[in-house]
Amino acid sequence: MSDTWGQTIRCKAAVAWEAGKPLVIEEVEVAPPQKGEVRIKILFTSLCHTDVYFWEAKGQTPLFPRIFGHEAGGVVESVGEGVAELKPGDHVLPVFTGECKQCRHCKSAESNMCELLRINTDRGEMISDGKTRFSKDGKPIYHFLGTSTFSEYTVVHEGCVAKINPEAPLDTVCILSCGMSTGLGATLNVAKPTKGSTVAIFGLGAVGLAAAEGARLSGASRIIGIDLNPNRFNDAKKFGVTEFINPKDHGDKPVQQVIAEMTDGGVDRSVECTGNVNAMISAFECVHDGWGVAVLVGVPNKDDAFKTHPVNVLNERTLKGTFFGNYKPRSDIPGVVELYMKKELELEKFITHRIHFSEINKAFDYMLKGESLRCIISMD
Amino acid sequence: MSDTWGQTIRCKAAVAWEAGKPLVIEEVEVAPPQKGEVRIKILFTSLCHTDVYFWEAKGQTPLFPRIFGHEAGGVVESVGEGVAELKPGDHVLPVFTGECKQCRHCKSAESNMCELLRINTDRGEMISDGKTRFSKDGKPIYHFLGTSTFSEYTVVHEGCVAKINPEAPLDTVCILSCGMSTGLGATLNVAKPTKGSTVAIFGLGAVGLAAAEGARLSGASRIIGIDLNPNRFNDAKKFGVTEFINPKDHGDKPVQQVIAEMTDGGVDRSVECTGNVNAMISAFECVHDGWGVAVLVGVPNKDDAFKTHPVNVLNERTLKGTFFGNYKPRSDIPGVVELYMKKELELEKFITHRIHFSEINKAFDYMLKGESLRCIISMD
Ligand SMILES: NC(=O)c1ccc[n+]([C@@H]2O[C@H](COP(=O)([O-])OP(=O)(O)OC[C@H]3O[C@@H](n4cnc5c(N)ncnc54)[C@H](O)[C@@H]3O)[C@@H](O)[C@H]2O)c1
Ligand SMILES: NC(=O)c1ccc[n+]([C@@H]2O[C@H](COP(=O)([O-])OP(=O)(O)OC[C@H]3O[C@@H](n4cnc5c(N)ncnc54)[C@H](O)[C@@H]3O)[C@@H](O)[C@H]2O)c1
Ligand SMILES: [Zn+2]
Ligand SMILES: [Zn+2]
Ligand SMILES: [Zn+2]
Ligand SMILES: [Zn+2]
Repeated sequence: MSDTWGQTIRCKAAVAWEAGKPLVIEEVEVAPPQKGEVRIKILFTSLCHTDVYFWEAKGQTPLFPRIFGHEAGGVVESVGEGVAELKPGDHVLPVFTGECKQCRHCKSAESNMCELLRINTDRGEMISDGKTRFSKDGKPIYHFLGTSTFSEYTVVHEGCVAKINPEAPLDTVCILSCGMSTGLGATLNVAKPTKGSTVAIFGLGAVGLAAAEGARLSGASRIIGIDLNPNRFNDAKKFGVTEFINPKDHGDKPVQQVIAEMTDGGVDRSVECTGNVNAMISAFECVHDGWGVAVLVGVPNKDDAFKTHPVNVLNERTLKGTFFGNYKPRSDIPGVVELYMKKELELEKFITHRIHFSEINKAFDYMLKGESLRCIISMD
Repeated sequence: MSDTWGQTIRCKAAVAWEAGKPLVIEEVEVAPPQKGEVRIKILFTSLCHTDVYFWEAKGQTPLFPRIFGHEAGGVVESVGEGVAELKPGDHVLPVFTGECKQCRHCKSAESNMCELLRINTDRGEMISDGKTRFSKDGKPIYHFLGTSTFSEYTVVHEGCVAKINPEAPLDTVCILSCGMSTGLGATLNVAKPTKGSTVAIFGLGAVGLAAAEGARLSGASRIIGIDLNPNRFNDAKKFGVTEFINPKDHGDKPVQQVIAEMTDGGVDRSVECTGNVNAMISAFECVHDGWGVAVLVGVPNKDDAFKTHPVNVLNERTLKGTFFGNYKPRSDIPGVVELYMKKELELEKFITHRIHFSEINKAFDYMLKGESLRCIISMD
């Protein structure tokens, strides 16, 4: 038992006081974990688009002051009452969506959309008591996605904690907390290309490149990357992307038709990682009839409509969607870490920048300028 | 070898001379089968909506005179050059879509949409030479769906012939040539409900009831039938349908919402057998997030658009379409006949009428009045 067990910890956190304003490193209080909660000492964290999106708070109800961050690796400092599967010293990844192991979703072999701990971007407090564990001078600071990893210590529901191999380097595997697992799982768990398949990846951001990494791991023979930004192709080659299509280069011809012509009728699998509804439709219509499977990953706008002629479905195409790559965080993420340990999964190529916690606002700059895939922020 | 081997046969056929006009029983000539073809003595045939639809010839290029019919059972009379898997005396079901065993679709474990022999409603001649095998007084009569079973003898491509157990009663298993297999396979091969699942069936015509039979065989705990015609429910009870919803009884509330309320969030599987695009959308949106699978079977109108918010997909729902229940006619239909022989699959309840070939127009009346599920027409 650590000295800090049951005590409030005073530590540094990067607080977002206002939408779109640089984070401020502050000394905050982190209350001890309550029943079913875990307090984690964060060692490494990284920045994902979702942090930036809610920090900008455009088109949402803003919730400030708030501590962002949801991709991270750390060590358990203490656990609350009733936490049986975790103990101080365990190496863990906090995850923005949880696994209660009790609900219909957790009991289903297919779903990872836990009824209790499913992602909730509006909630700023802990589930058990509706209170925050963070405060500054007694004033509460809101949580984000139940993880808030831009802090030296954070409190997380035990259902949102993946216990991993203690030999795994946290400064690398921390990126499996969100985007990498999302893209990788979309391909490996949902699209499931067989060896020799042709795969189209729409959107070559971090998520799409992780989907391409999944296609490479599956032994796909052709990985066709589609992006409106031609610069993305250079990066993408490292991720196994063999061909590149910029829809803008084909005038009025729909990209699904370009793909059908390149592939004798369509690809075997497609994974959409853009969030753009037209790309979603193209991703569906570009798979081969008879056996093609399209997987949607990107988060659409509120008023978007996915629209296709029903005959495209009747011709034996499959449309699926996934959330966090269909991984159950506690049950499955430790196995993804093992894939990395066995040197099958390559993670280093996703890490384009490394900075110290004190410079955290630089990570926002890199992402906003489109310069980074993942920027690792080290806490000590 | 029969006396008629290599000879033209003169026999009775029901000829459609004009769109929407009663068929006329005529004496026609049936030429011998050419390379890769089979001549079949039809013993029993039945009427399906697709016959009626192309007989009415509304909204299509009409092709007359034509011999309709595509659900049937018979015995091989003779085979053309190179036909290795069939011989005179074999009991067979002709099927409107074929299996060449050579193309990418036939070689794929998933697809049954054979590139060579896929359904073609416009073609009125044999594939090999673009000629008809039927004629009257030397004038050609067009084929329909490559089967034309409203004739005592017909010529069919060997790839469109399922060789079945000779002990199976052809006056019953003949209905497996089309609608029954379509509905049954949509559930068993594509929706694949597990034991205890909840299943929604949209449209309780013959195809929908066959889908319900598939759900019953799968051990579904609840089979919810949805139809705009309240009379359909009485029939449906015999097919294992446990609950009935008429969307008209629920005012403005979308039927997917009615279903979600009845089932704690949605059914595990749905099968759409209406051809109505709104029913297709409801069938998709009524499946549970996380694991629900919706299967489209109905044939839509040309200008229909399937439309849904992409989040319905992202929440881990699956949309699939199927054609002929994903059965490969030669490889799989013999096994469906065995399901009947083992008394697992019940077919008798689909047969509501039996008539002699000379009265074939009555079968059209029964169907147009909505009185029949299947009317068996015996040839002798
Ligand atoms: N479902 C989940 O669990 C989950 C988790 C994380 C992220 N996401 C979503 O995945 C998507 C990708 O995330 P990211 O971080 O890689 O984003 P990103 O912005 O880095 O990459 C998206 C890429 O898509 C390209 N693009 C946009 N519109 C396009 C179009 N019409 N055709 C082709 N390319 C187009 C952009 O140029 C960009 O390169 C986002 O929508 C994100 O919200 C989903
Ligand atoms: N995909 C294939 O391989 C294949 C093969 C055969 C038939 N089909 C198609 O399957 C469909 C059903 O065939 P069938 O012979 O059973 O037809 P049917 O006309 O006997 O039955 C259709 C039923 O759907 C009901 N219905 C129509 N609109 C509805 C709505 N909006 N909501 C609820 N119920 C509605 C009707 O009242 C009717 O009872 C047709 O579209 C047919 O073309 C497809
Ligand atoms: Zn759960
Ligand atoms: Zn993220
Ligand atoms: Zn074929
Ligand atoms: Zn039919």
